[in-house]
Amino acid sequence: MRVCRRATFNAAHRLYRPDWSDEQNNAVFGKCNNPNYHGHNYTLEVWIDGQIDPETGYLIDLKLVKDLIGREVQDRFDHRNLNLDCTEFANLNPTAENIAVVIWNLLREKLDSKYGLSVKLWETQNNIIEYDGK
Amino acid sequence: MRVCRRATFNAAHRLYRPDWSDEQNNAVFGKCNNPNYHGHNYTLEVWIDGQIDPETGYLIDLKLVKDLIGREVQDRFDHRNLNLDCTEFANLNPTAENIAVVIWNLLREKLDSKYGLSVKLWETQNNIIEYDGK
Amino acid sequence: MRVCRRATFNAAHRLYRPDWSDEQNNAVFGKCNNPNYHGHNYTLEVWIDGQIDPETGYLIDLKLVKDLIGREVQDRFDHRNLNLDCTEFANLNPTAENIAVVIWNLLREKLDSKYGLSVKLWETQNNIIEYDGK
Amino acid sequence: MRVCRRATFNAAHRLYRPDWSDEQNNAVFGKCNNPNYHGHNYTLEVWIDGQIDPETGYLIDLKLVKDLIGREVQDRFDHRNLNLDCTEFANLNPTAENIAVVIWNLLREKLDSKYGLSVKLWETQNNIIEYDGK
Amino acid sequence: MRVCRRATFNAAHRLYRPDWSDEQNNAVFGKCNNPNYHGHNYTLEVWIDGQIDPETGYLIDLKLVKDLIGREVQDRFDHRNLNLDCTEFANLNPTAENIAVVIWNLLREKLDSKYGLSVKLWETQNNIIEYDGK
Amino acid sequence: MRVCRRATFNAAHRLYRPDWSDEQNNAVFGKCNNPNYHGHNYTLEVWIDGQIDPETGYLIDLKLVKDLIGREVQDRFDHRNLNLDCTEFANLNPTAENIAVVIWNLLREKLDSKYGLSVKLWETQNNIIEYDGK
Repeated sequence: MRVCRRATFNAAHRLYRPDWSDEQNNAVFGKCNNPNYHGHNYTLEVWIDGQIDPETGYLIDLKLVKDLIGREVQDRFDHRNLNLDCTEFANLNPTAENIAVVIWNLLREKLDSKYGLSVKLWETQNNIIEYDGK
Repeated sequence: MRVCRRATFNAAHRLYRPDWSDEQNNAVFGKCNNPNYHGHNYTLEVWIDGQIDPETGYLIDLKLVKDLIGREVQDRFDHRNLNLDCTEFANLNPTAENIAVVIWNLLREKLDSKYGLSVKLWETQNNIIEYDGK
Repeated sequence: MRVCRRATFNAAHRLYRPDWSDEQNNAVFGKCNNPNYHGHNYTLEVWIDGQIDPETGYLIDLKLVKDLIGREVQDRFDHRNLNLDCTEFANLNPTAENIAVVIWNLLREKLDSKYGLSVKLWETQNNIIEYDGK
Repeated sequence: MRVCRRATFNAAHRLYRPDWSDEQNNAVFGKCNNPNYHGHNYTLEVWIDGQIDPETGYLIDLKLVKDLIGREVQDRFDHRNLNLDCTEFANLNPTAENIAVVIWNLLREKLDSKYGLSVKLWETQNNIIEYDGK
Repeated sequence: MRVCRRATFNAAHRLYRPDWSDEQNNAVFGKCNNPNYHGHNYTLEVWIDGQIDPETGYLIDLKLVKDLIGREVQDRFDHRNLNLDCTEFANLNPTAENIAVVIWNLLREKLDSKYGLSVKLWETQNNIIEYDGK
Repeated sequence: MRVCRRATFNAAHRLYRPDWSDEQNNAVFGKCNNPNYHGHNYTLEVWIDGQIDPETGYLIDLKLVKDLIGREVQDRFDHRNLNLDCTEFANLNPTAENIAVVIWNLLREKLDSKYGLSVKLWETQNNIIEYDGK
């Protein structure tokens, strides 16, 4: 069984590698390489798998998951510039793929190891990422 | 291959254990423990996996799945109080997890064993459950 | 110009008139008259019209509207039984129409009279109400 | 890890088998057998799994996937009659299941074999298909 | 006050004028002029304005509006070819604009004149029409 | 009658007044005043009102409106920093209200004066603006 809590955050970012020329960055990242950044409303689904606790009927209390996402994801990334404000991306290109990996690692560290974890991240309504640590 | 039919139902419920004190129920279930109940528009996706029938091009006729959901889920739970009106929850706390298990069991019993079955249940747009019988 | 803040709340209710017979209540309200209640995830849009403040570029700070909806609507109605828990519906049938009127009146009283006000309420994805005080 | 690009196309179709009688076609396919066709706004999610390229931070450039869907799916099927205009369905009943299989095969042929591929197709908001080649 | 009932129907159509040349039809209607038709999932909102009935708390019973849409709109147009199967479009180009006008006229004729009427029609998620008879 | 074309664009922005102190900017704009910017997926609906052209059955060709939005809105603002890259906001705080006004003015200038114009802008799923030039 899996349960999910959904949340959102809004952030600016720019895709580029500082060790590449402007030409190479533009060729690979196109308009996502705008030096002045652009931004997104990210939607995040955090999926946790495990067994129902027969005491409560919960797999996990989703209010705790909501709070966990608040502390680990929204307090860090909401209304931020991922490249400039967030140490997680100081040396990591903030593609949607890398954002999903960073979020998974942040949550995995705080989540009881008896639970499985997977994250699903919408960068736009048309671009979606899923990551489960593998 | 998997095919899905989506449906909705609206119900009242309350989360609590009759063998717990009010304090304990409030500590665990918070405002979901309101003694006078609250309610939700539940959205259900019923996913069936199997092979395409080369005769028809259907894995299964989704009109049959629609009717099955109507009889087994909507006729039972729509516009009901899950705690008071539904024998399935007479001794079972109607958390979204338990509702998903009950629905899976009801459908599994009526669905040809050649098909796999999984259900996905939205309690709100932010709280989602998936269950496949394991 | 109009600006909107969207919010949700989840509540139980029952449609009926205590001065009518069961037959009459069932004839008019059908399954919405279930004596044990059913429930909905209500979605609310609060629309405010006025002029842009040239100082701030805001018509009104939507964070204030979010807080206003929290205090006046969500604190009152979320995870409640509208018929039993909410004095607003002690003598008023909690149809979606009447809920919209009650919410409009609650917000109107707290909102600066220089602003126009309109509310839009989804009881389900298929049933929607709009009310602007007229 | 999996990444997804979403796209849409609008098409007419009719479900029937030319080797069946009208009675049999109507019994199995009901109103989907209307001889003059009906139609849908199809929504497609193309899911690709693999590893993040440490150079770019992309699993795959989703702009390439967008273009691939444009050439292989939208240019073929958008604003077409699947039965009459599309050779893929000359001898294949255009059920949502078969459309998903055809799309998967078209994309699989053009996609580097190092990537896994899965497609999800909405025929309506209530009827959904998933296919990963198995 | 206004209340709304939402519904859907799926249909094939083609945009063209029989008195125009192919060149002219293609120049104006582009790929919507495909001679073999294409199709859409149409979403319809029917908005009715009036006063709350103090007896029931309803402006109008939305179950009646649901049934009205079923009889007047869905039974006519769902799973049909608008050009070939529907007399309403025998001499009228089935643009979304004209479909909205036809639906408004069909509903207006059956709806008590004390109510105002407006319809909103989605041809796709990006193309929307509103018509109120003026 | 009114017709609408929907489109999206993704941009970074920061809310602040250069002539205010940091304290004042933070007090009024809160986390939206992050000096390194944040961003949004904006959704835009462009509503045009007029009469159906009896020749075509169109109020206006929505492909032209799509192209107009592309040239006037998306080419200017998509994947841009509204504060730094867009002269429209060189001396104008890019609140959602002001963005809506700027878009309305840009479109109004290019749209035949026989049509009425209104825009609806989602900054997030919860914050929405409507502007019709008044």
